[in-house]
Amino acid sequence: MAEKTEKMKARQPRGFADRSADDIRAVEKMMGKIREVYELYGFEPADQPMIEYTDALGKFLPDQDRPNEGVFSFQDDDEQWLSLRYDLTAPLARYVAENYERLPKPYRSYRAGWVFRNEKPGPGRFRQFMQFDADTVGTPGVAADAEMAMMMADIMEALGIKRGDYVIRVNNRKVLDGVLEAIGLGGDDNAGRRLTVLRAIDKLDKFGPEGVKLLLGKGRWDGGKEGEGDFTKGAGLDDTAIAKVLAYIETGEIEANEGVEELAQIKALCAAAGYDDGRVKIDPSVVRGLEYYTGPVYEAELLAEIPNDEGQVVRFGSVGGGGRYDGLVSRFRGEPVPAAGISIGVSRLMTALKNLGKLDTSDVVAPVVVLVMDRDTESLGRYQKMVSELRQAGIRAELYLGGAGMKAQIKYADRRGSPVVVIQGGDERTKGEVQIKDLIEGARQAAAIAGHAEYKEARPGQITVAEADLVAEVRKILDAQAEERRRG
Amino acid sequence: MAEKTEKMKARQPRGFADRSADDIRAVEKMMGKIREVYELYGFEPADQPMIEYTDALGKFLPDQDRPNEGVFSFQDDDEQWLSLRYDLTAPLARYVAENYERLPKPYRSYRAGWVFRNEKPGPGRFRQFMQFDADTVGTPGVAADAEMAMMMADIMEALGIKRGDYVIRVNNRKVLDGVLEAIGLGGDDNAGRRLTVLRAIDKLDKFGPEGVKLLLGKGRWDGGKEGEGDFTKGAGLDDTAIAKVLAYIETGEIEANEGVEELAQIKALCAAAGYDDGRVKIDPSVVRGLEYYTGPVYEAELLAEIPNDEGQVVRFGSVGGGGRYDGLVSRFRGEPVPAAGISIGVSRLMTALKNLGKLDTSDVVAPVVVLVMDRDTESLGRYQKMVSELRQAGIRAELYLGGAGMKAQIKYADRRGSPVVVIQGGDERTKGEVQIKDLIEGARQAAAIAGHAEYKEARPGQITVAEADLVAEVRKILDAQAEERRRG
Repeated sequence: MAEKTEKMKARQPRGFADRSADDIRAVEKMMGKIREVYELYGFEPADQPMIEYTDALGKFLPDQDRPNEGVFSFQDDDEQWLSLRYDLTAPLARYVAENYERLPKPYRSYRAGWVFRNEKPGPGRFRQFMQFDADTVGTPGVAADAEMAMMMADIMEALGIKRGDYVIRVNNRKVLDGVLEAIGLGGDDNAGRRLTVLRAIDKLDKFGPEGVKLLLGKGRWDGGKEGEGDFTKGAGLDDTAIAKVLAYIETGEIEANEGVEELAQIKALCAAAGYDDGRVKIDPSVVRGLEYYTGPVYEAELLAEIPNDEGQVVRFGSVGGGGRYDGLVSRFRGEPVPAAGISIGVSRLMTALKNLGKLDTSDVVAPVVVLVMDRDTESLGRYQKMVSELRQAGIRAELYLGGAGMKAQIKYADRRGSPVVVIQGGDERTKGEVQIKDLIEGARQAAAIAGHAEYKEARPGQITVAEADLVAEVRKILDAQAEERRRG
Repeated sequence: MAEKTEKMKARQPRGFADRSADDIRAVEKMMGKIREVYELYGFEPADQPMIEYTDALGKFLPDQDRPNEGVFSFQDDDEQWLSLRYDLTAPLARYVAENYERLPKPYRSYRAGWVFRNEKPGPGRFRQFMQFDADTVGTPGVAADAEMAMMMADIMEALGIKRGDYVIRVNNRKVLDGVLEAIGLGGDDNAGRRLTVLRAIDKLDKFGPEGVKLLLGKGRWDGGKEGEGDFTKGAGLDDTAIAKVLAYIETGEIEANEGVEELAQIKALCAAAGYDDGRVKIDPSVVRGLEYYTGPVYEAELLAEIPNDEGQVVRFGSVGGGGRYDGLVSRFRGEPVPAAGISIGVSRLMTALKNLGKLDTSDVVAPVVVLVMDRDTESLGRYQKMVSELRQAGIRAELYLGGAGMKAQIKYADRRGSPVVVIQGGDERTKGEVQIKDLIEGARQAAAIAGHAEYKEARPGQITVAEADLVAEVRKILDAQAEERRRG
């Protein structure tokens, strides 16, 4: 046993989070529905490990200028650098390249898992979070991109988000490249500045056109005024160039190029399948922050105004997206391996759905608790048997395993949200009986008395039954409680 | 595009594994059944992040003599050391200590997740693997230990493992401590040697009494003879001490102590619930490798002889276990917080179940593939619509998205295991028809012809139907195939 003086402080590293039972159940429910859509579209489950060689992951993170920034890295015992994956796409690219010959092509797969970012944590910004992706590798055709956009729409609806409360916005990096060339940012030498411009455009949702204007020019102060808050350096464009970029993202007007042509095809394919009813829209301001996109990019946005965790009503924004990344697998193969995919931000989407009331987990019933009145091994054995019988009947049940007295045991059951406790003291045992206490009815009764309200008993708060009838009588109460929940 | 000469090699770090669709589906199925048992017993889902402060994890790994060995560690930007978790128990202990006041006690939770060991990888020995745990924190009573043992038995049966094909073996570290004291290894100074002796005993299954004898004495050569294979240093006991230890693990005879008394109670509780029919057994050779156990320990062992992945019939051995760890939470609290838990080795158990034929995933039907005969946007739109209609009817379906011709497209569908392909060329389009090709029947026909066998067609290999009947006709074929599978 540790001495008081030398005990360690239990604390979580910054930017990491424990998850509650409710959140876990809500995520399971949500992911089950997303999985159904991926399966329906013919994708197969796949899974890569969380650790890859650092060089295999590449450096495609946004806001990452120094090498190794953004990822958690460590050296293996053979001196090679390993990293925790920062997304699910880079490991997929490694996997496909390594197993290329034996995979059916196009290779259609989906994968869910934790990813890690070695970044400064902030409110709602975690260093470990979950993504749920689907990818089609091995095809250059925009039909694959159109499918991704439509599948995202189907996912939103499978999750119960009403048509009109979301939109899948589609753009094309090649179109943006045309704009950037027009303002003199073409060529390999300008790759860095191009990225800064793209990331400025990506902030349109967050900061509005005025904010983007600052980010395209000299830079932007978070506090709104010079010297207030953090400063983000701008792309350093002149006024003419800034005007051209803003005109494009506001009107979408640009000379015809390959990207424009591809967008027209995506639009036509979505229209043929009926998704042009507002579900999928071409939108010139969509950029996506990751560096590896090479063609069409898509973003799923929630339009409904949703209360956030602090109760403020906000427009929720992006809950997922993706695009075409023709260069990622090619890095390993030395031949073109075009690919397109989407990624759903699981935690973010879950928060939105919970606040929309679409992730009800109240159908999970807490366990029946069998109280422990006598602690000799024989009595414990008898209580244990009651618990076993309830479980064999499919009823969640547990033996109270702590050391507390009867009152504290009932309090424990209350905190667990238990529907019922089972009690057998010496008297009941002699008579071959058990008491069953209905905690839901009991709480109703207590609330009524405390509020001096008139109280009409729906069920007796406590009954005494023969030991042999335990399971049947508990079942009756659980059924009555379930019926009451259904009626609201 | 990367040049041929500078392309990167796609390779997986040593000791990590990609998972196939089959494996993922099998694990999901298995974990669903384990989850049902945990829920039935009244445990609630919980989840901790994969990264913790290194000092919070502690150093409890087996075969780990140097600091930091065994775990993957890295420094945060504030210089503090972080590590990937090596099990699910240490993070649980941190969580409970941090949230102690607001948790109902005993705190009953279950959690599944990947854990990481920075060890030398070997066949079947991975550096990332999955565990599925349940824990009761906050009770010293052996009823909690008895429950863990019985719950492991229920899990085995929920997974379809027949009674008699498994056993839950139970022992007590306190009993072992009595043996160690009897041979003069009591006291803090001998902690290291005690651990070496425990680990020697833990190898009884693997090396037999002769091997354990060597490990208790001077040491053991892996190859069987001096100088052959790796050498494991022994505990250095003298012959009398070795004889005492061996006598204990073979007969279980020892003077009465607290540990013996606890085992007797566990035995009585299991008997009261009927688990003394061979499901749960007291076994003096059970040790468990982790250092943090302080009382009862339990191990789930498969007795059935099962073919392994190489086809050799082997006794599979341990697929999970656990024990009481009264010191882990206390490290943070400076007051006793007794706890007991179990951990299921997911990958290992999955391999066993697959080889036992208990994890059939052949009910997953591959997607129907709609072939692409014409590639203009209008035709693609029409094919896309067919796919949408199939999906809306709940049928897995996909548009062929690659660039290949018809023959290669059918080959792709075959590799995917597709039940059916849908074909519409110019002729069919003019007539408002589609062709549906039954790939299962087609394969049967082809096999019969190749083998010169007599062939009785169950269904026509290919039919032409009106476009409007596509969904209904595909459904008919899928139903007929399903019926055929059911009949075997």
